[in-house]
Amino acid sequence: MCSKLTDLETCMQTMMAVFHKYACKDKDDKVFTLSNPELKELLSKELSGFVKGAADAEAVNKIMKKLDHDKDGEVNFQEFVVMVSSICIQCNDLLMAHIKQRK
Amino acid sequence: MCSKLTDLETCMQTMMAVFHKYACKDKDDKVFTLSNPELKELLSKELSGFVKGAADAEAVNKIMKKLDHDKDGEVNFQEFVVMVSSICIQCNDLLMAHIKQRK
Repeated sequence: MCSKLTDLETCMQTMMAVFHKYACKDKDDKVFTLSNPELKELLSKELSGFVKGAADAEAVNKIMKKLDHDKDGEVNFQEFVVMVSSICIQCNDLLMAHIKQRK
Repeated sequence: MCSKLTDLETCMQTMMAVFHKYACKDKDDKVFTLSNPELKELLSKELSGFVKGAADAEAVNKIMKKLDHDKDGEVNFQEFVVMVSSICIQCNDLLMAHIKQRK
């Protein structure tokens, strides 16, 4: 019998699920990567609280350029995880700074 | 009023919460990093399904060496996120290979 996922395992499952929920949307043949419109939708629906201008085409283009390391015009899962990780690290840095300030 | 967190935002919150749950355990003055015993406990309780030998001291030492980029003998949040990300990317690669095999 499969044991219940831990919080961290659920976290990884969620990252994969969210990525693939948007990666297969625009029915292009690249169902395992995020096109620009798919990235735009993911940012505005999943990370609007973190990514300023998530709905603004120019901001999305800039983010796309930063993420698209292999320059194929799409964001693959590894590039997506790098984005989520860097946002997460920045949030933790802010939290640490806040805690140290209150001491 | 604070809007409800999205799945991805909850994911990032969980990563921070899990890390800090173990990072402050052994009451050393380094409450924001994982010592070897803290990393061992995190691996065996949160990632036992992914990390072979999570309870075995030698395996944990090897993982610690790999993660500890700044060589301070501890795992900081950034190093922790790199670990979670690489496990997540490997899981996604396995999933993609499985899907392509079934086509």
